[in-house]
Amino acid sequence: MSVRHFVGDAVVAATPDFDRGLAYGDGLFETMRAHRGDVHWWPAHWRRLQRGAHALGIVLPDEDRARGEARDLLDGAEAVLKLIVTRGNGGRGYAPPEPATPHWILSRHDVPPATPADGLTLRWCRTRLALQPALAGLKHCNRLEQVLARAEWRDADTHEGLMLSTEGDAVSATSANLFVLHDGRWTTPAIDRCGVAGVCREWAIGALGAREARLAVTEVEAADAVFLCNAVRGILPVARLGACSWRPHPQVAQLQRRLAAEHPAFATEVA
Amino acid sequence: MSVRHFVGDAVVAATPDFDRGLAYGDGLFETMRAHRGDVHWWPAHWRRLQRGAHALGIVLPDEDRARGEARDLLDGAEAVLKLIVTRGNGGRGYAPPEPATPHWILSRHDVPPATPADGLTLRWCRTRLALQPALAGLKHCNRLEQVLARAEWRDADTHEGLMLSTEGDAVSATSANLFVLHDGRWTTPAIDRCGVAGVCREWAIGALGAREARLAVTEVEAADAVFLCNAVRGILPVARLGACSWRPHPQVAQLQRRLAAEHPAFATEVA
Repeated sequence: MSVRHFVGDAVVAATPDFDRGLAYGDGLFETMRAHRGDVHWWPAHWRRLQRGAHALGIVLPDEDRARGEARDLLDGAEAVLKLIVTRGNGGRGYAPPEPATPHWILSRHDVPPATPADGLTLRWCRTRLALQPALAGLKHCNRLEQVLARAEWRDADTHEGLMLSTEGDAVSATSANLFVLHDGRWTTPAIDRCGVAGVCREWAIGALGAREARLAVTEVEAADAVFLCNAVRGILPVARLGACSWRPHPQVAQLQRRLAAEHPAFATEVA
Repeated sequence: MSVRHFVGDAVVAATPDFDRGLAYGDGLFETMRAHRGDVHWWPAHWRRLQRGAHALGIVLPDEDRARGEARDLLDGAEAVLKLIVTRGNGGRGYAPPEPATPHWILSRHDVPPATPADGLTLRWCRTRLALQPALAGLKHCNRLEQVLARAEWRDADTHEGLMLSTEGDAVSATSANLFVLHDGRWTTPAIDRCGVAGVCREWAIGALGAREARLAVTEVEAADAVFLCNAVRGILPVARLGACSWRPHPQVAQLQRRLAAEHPAFATEVA
């Protein structure tokens, strides 16, 4: 892992004292898959970052500078690139400083291990997602719900956990979006009240013509096929969820091949 | 302002890279009033920190060490002391590292200006508090709701904003708890679904025999008296809220005198 910190245009050595990201989770982040030192989905990640910045009133760094620094840090690698942008420094108290200069952090991480060939094993999480339309969809840095949910299991044989909203509908995995197939039609949970507008989710909605809707637990368990997706790992077929199991489904395999054809980082992972 | 960072027992220069407080708001904080270099309510603050640490699975530093460092930093001052404790460093991903060594930060800040003599002017905030029983009551570092609410106004004549839950009941100000009087009985909103278990709130509940209950907007507006409270500023009478106004109430003045008698930091502020 390597990391670089910036405040506005300036390189700094570390997180400044009184950074509001640390104090309040007052920031946004993107986790991106890099291939040969470049981020194929950079434009989609930056668009989501812009939507979050607009909603929270956070100033973004210059995009060209950020992308240039990212390429320099990646240095041609296959890697995961993380970008955090916080509102910057403030004194004590919630009032956002005006003007604020963002603190932004680029870090390079290893590509995670490949998905099990037969698909993921999931569980249901007890920790639920609160309904907060003001933050729904954003990839902000208030992630205690996901932290608590991910802390519910430690066995390496469980790959992910599905989270319900506090009203009981299925929303997403702790770090991936959810798609289910019924009678030839794909559905992914709506993210207007909680959940994250995943970059791979957006791609998959377009590729599948999927609808966005509230999704009951029973609709997940009765699905003909289930997959998770995120921008780091692509399309992840689900094999097991509690007592339910699914065999590999040709539509999921087809979507993986389509992603591999469109996004070079995923080309090597499909048979 | 001055600040000191620690990781476990060790002094460090700054926030470590990959601190989970910065990445996810995965931490807790306390904001305390110090008088002559000591924190009168330290035991209550530490108890709340322990409750939060238990709920989130965060390891706390040694209490005696933390209090000793706090006294050293305060150096006899009248000040506000802030303590942040994060889960510590982690790699990428929500899974909490095991074992984790906490990062803790002590900082000293100026005492805020005195309250207006005739009471605070409040407004209602548009940003609402989501219902999340798993985090309710805790003073954790996921505070985007408060940041968004506090960003709703900038005029210096508005001192605080009241927040509703997403279901529409009145919960608290952005950085203070709320008490209302009806027919001789004090009520403060229940914090089992959202809101923070304030240290001064706990003291005031005991002092007043106040009940904890859901509170409608109309119950706030129709109250005989209203005050806010927090551990930094004590008891704050409310004079105005939108079109409503209240004259100074003898029970609020009496509570201020009682706090001044019990907590030396507030003794100088009461006539």
